[in-house]
Amino acid sequence: MKKLLVEFIGTFFLVLTITVGAVCGKAGDFAPLAIGATLMIMVFAGGHISGGHFNPAVSLGAMLRGALPSKDIVGYIIAQILGAVVASIVGTKLIAPEVAVETATISTVPAFVAELLYTFALVYVVLNTATAKGTDGNSFYGLAIGFTVVVGAFTVGSISLGAFNPAVAVGLVVSGKLAAAQIWIPLVACFLGGALAAFTFNFANGKD
Amino acid sequence: MKKLLVEFIGTFFLVLTITVGAVCGKAGDFAPLAIGATLMIMVFAGGHISGGHFNPAVSLGAMLRGALPSKDIVGYIIAQILGAVVASIVGTKLIAPEVAVETATISTVPAFVAELLYTFALVYVVLNTATAKGTDGNSFYGLAIGFTVVVGAFTVGSISLGAFNPAVAVGLVVSGKLAAAQIWIPLVACFLGGALAAFTFNFANGKD
Amino acid sequence: MKKLLVEFIGTFFLVLTITVGAVCGKAGDFAPLAIGATLMIMVFAGGHISGGHFNPAVSLGAMLRGALPSKDIVGYIIAQILGAVVASIVGTKLIAPEVAVETATISTVPAFVAELLYTFALVYVVLNTATAKGTDGNSFYGLAIGFTVVVGAFTVGSISLGAFNPAVAVGLVVSGKLAAAQIWIPLVACFLGGALAAFTFNFANGKD
Amino acid sequence: MKKLLVEFIGTFFLVLTITVGAVCGKAGDFAPLAIGATLMIMVFAGGHISGGHFNPAVSLGAMLRGALPSKDIVGYIIAQILGAVVASIVGTKLIAPEVAVETATISTVPAFVAELLYTFALVYVVLNTATAKGTDGNSFYGLAIGFTVVVGAFTVGSISLGAFNPAVAVGLVVSGKLAAAQIWIPLVACFLGGALAAFTFNFANGKD
Repeated sequence: MKKLLVEFIGTFFLVLTITVGAVCGKAGDFAPLAIGATLMIMVFAGGHISGGHFNPAVSLGAMLRGALPSKDIVGYIIAQILGAVVASIVGTKLIAPEVAVETATISTVPAFVAELLYTFALVYVVLNTATAKGTDGNSFYGLAIGFTVVVGAFTVGSISLGAFNPAVAVGLVVSGKLAAAQIWIPLVACFLGGALAAFTFNFANGKD
Repeated sequence: MKKLLVEFIGTFFLVLTITVGAVCGKAGDFAPLAIGATLMIMVFAGGHISGGHFNPAVSLGAMLRGALPSKDIVGYIIAQILGAVVASIVGTKLIAPEVAVETATISTVPAFVAELLYTFALVYVVLNTATAKGTDGNSFYGLAIGFTVVVGAFTVGSISLGAFNPAVAVGLVVSGKLAAAQIWIPLVACFLGGALAAFTFNFANGKD
Repeated sequence: MKKLLVEFIGTFFLVLTITVGAVCGKAGDFAPLAIGATLMIMVFAGGHISGGHFNPAVSLGAMLRGALPSKDIVGYIIAQILGAVVASIVGTKLIAPEVAVETATISTVPAFVAELLYTFALVYVVLNTATAKGTDGNSFYGLAIGFTVVVGAFTVGSISLGAFNPAVAVGLVVSGKLAAAQIWIPLVACFLGGALAAFTFNFANGKD
Repeated sequence: MKKLLVEFIGTFFLVLTITVGAVCGKAGDFAPLAIGATLMIMVFAGGHISGGHFNPAVSLGAMLRGALPSKDIVGYIIAQILGAVVASIVGTKLIAPEVAVETATISTVPAFVAELLYTFALVYVVLNTATAKGTDGNSFYGLAIGFTVVVGAFTVGSISLGAFNPAVAVGLVVSGKLAAAQIWIPLVACFLGGALAAFTFNFANGKD
């Protein structure tokens, strides 16, 4: 229950910053920095309790790597999606109610490849910095994880909307930025990227 | 006395950067980065002496979590407010005297919700990264704390002025950016957000 | 083999961010931050497996410092160049296919000096933060290494294209940003800068 | 000798980034980030050898705090000024020779107060994060120190040129940005700020 609360809070603030800062445009050109930094602070704040996933693709990768019991994953994903939905509503209805959100159209192949690759990077970084024996006890995991999203959002945000996270994709549909008909692109790409990252991690780190 | 001096210095530089960089506009679009980074450096520099609060809402949260003796909180808050007042005067009178500060008007509900939520995030991050057993001995607490303000200031700075801190709110009134009649918005929202964060922390971390 | 996979992945994402973010312009003015941050995250994620070079000039410096067996350097450089080539193709053909890359012309002396000096800085930082006894066990090596590229790319990116890395230079030719006839400038300058940094490191650190 | 080499290198790159990025304008609005990040990387790279001052005001503060033998300070300052002079020449003559540097005029009181206060902050941060017992063994000292300059340069760079460092002030005169007749402003303000910071540190940290 404590873990699910922490996952809810972390995903809530991640999607709140995305909704107000990027979808409603309040953070301007700096939105990718604000978004990735939100992930960073929430990972540093909540990692010791829940692992600090805030992302169903990360939870999938953590499960495939053996860092999350498979019985926990459904609860984690529900808490994450709930946080994303509530944040999208709070952001658009209470904080920036005057903004009319315009739905973007993303191009299938570029968006799919971009989401797949940068979600791969995100889960690869999470597993290597927060679950590997070779980096045990470090103080940089949140910085590395959060800035993976900074990188991805700056680089391919204009191509794929820069979700790298199925819960964020749900939030983008709730806030009206992503068309429901296109949500399969980040959903499939993110889960696939996360799973590939877990296999790559397991191979590269051996039995650590 | 040493602790109060450190709280004065930290809050002074935080509000000096806010006053010159944001209120007087000298840091342009980068003001939120400069402001949050000021909090980061002062937390890293002063945390080992005073805890590095520089914020009455953080001191309230720390007291409710058991990390600040209740007999100390009044002195802390006085030192913080004094630092904020002196910084606002130094910034507007000595460093940027040619700037005519325009008073902003903030919209009650969006500003209240924004201040409440991001101050909750700030105190939640402070308690989890600087006072929790699960993160003891880490080297990232200042980075996480400072960048919570970077995130909030970029995301809702244009909505609520981005105080997340009652002492900063006082400074904003002294410099003329916030109307005295509206100071109740950040004051109530910040103390409420800080208290909620402390209760959430206490629940999520158990008896650590 | 695991080391080469990690070197491939790290260099791939470094050059993918360069290609999409800078060469194709998707990250705008923030491209240098995104590029350096990519190096940071990949160093933090892969350093415990391969050393986290992602750069033939770094591998050369590491070899001269005694941190990479000389029998490994050829494999490292092949993996790095392969990562760079694949990333340049994926970036220009799959993610940003609508962008017509314009070849830049760099001025010989300024570009050579800029590449030489900032590659010296990069390898000097790598050796001192990731291989020196005096900084053993630190949590900042990736931050220091990645931000050396942030610094160099912001400062001399418009002068030399900001490779600081022979594999990146190859990627810039593949994507069409750098003329093949000019590739000798970053190639010679980067290997020379890396070698000089290793000699400087060896002198300044003694037999550590 | 090794210490002086490290001080030369660190100050050289700090002033090279200032010269090319800010004085010659190549880093645009991001110059303050590039400059502070240069200090960060050089502190992380060289701190274990020389202490990583790269600034006569820091060396003065370190001496007054007992962290630098008084017999070493003259050598340190010479190495720092030499690095600054060489960097200013390399930057303006070799890397950005086409730029005509315009001399700025700074206003005495605002510039003096700005240099005094932010140099105080810099030396206060250096002493507390890199020499205090209470923060011994941390991995954040370079981040805190470098970002103090990021903060100062964004906030008061347009008011005082943002030296916070007598060696940088010399470099600004060599590159033509600061009039020789005004160099007393940063020189006096920086040494004064550094000395005040050392006294404040000694009081606040007791006999640690």
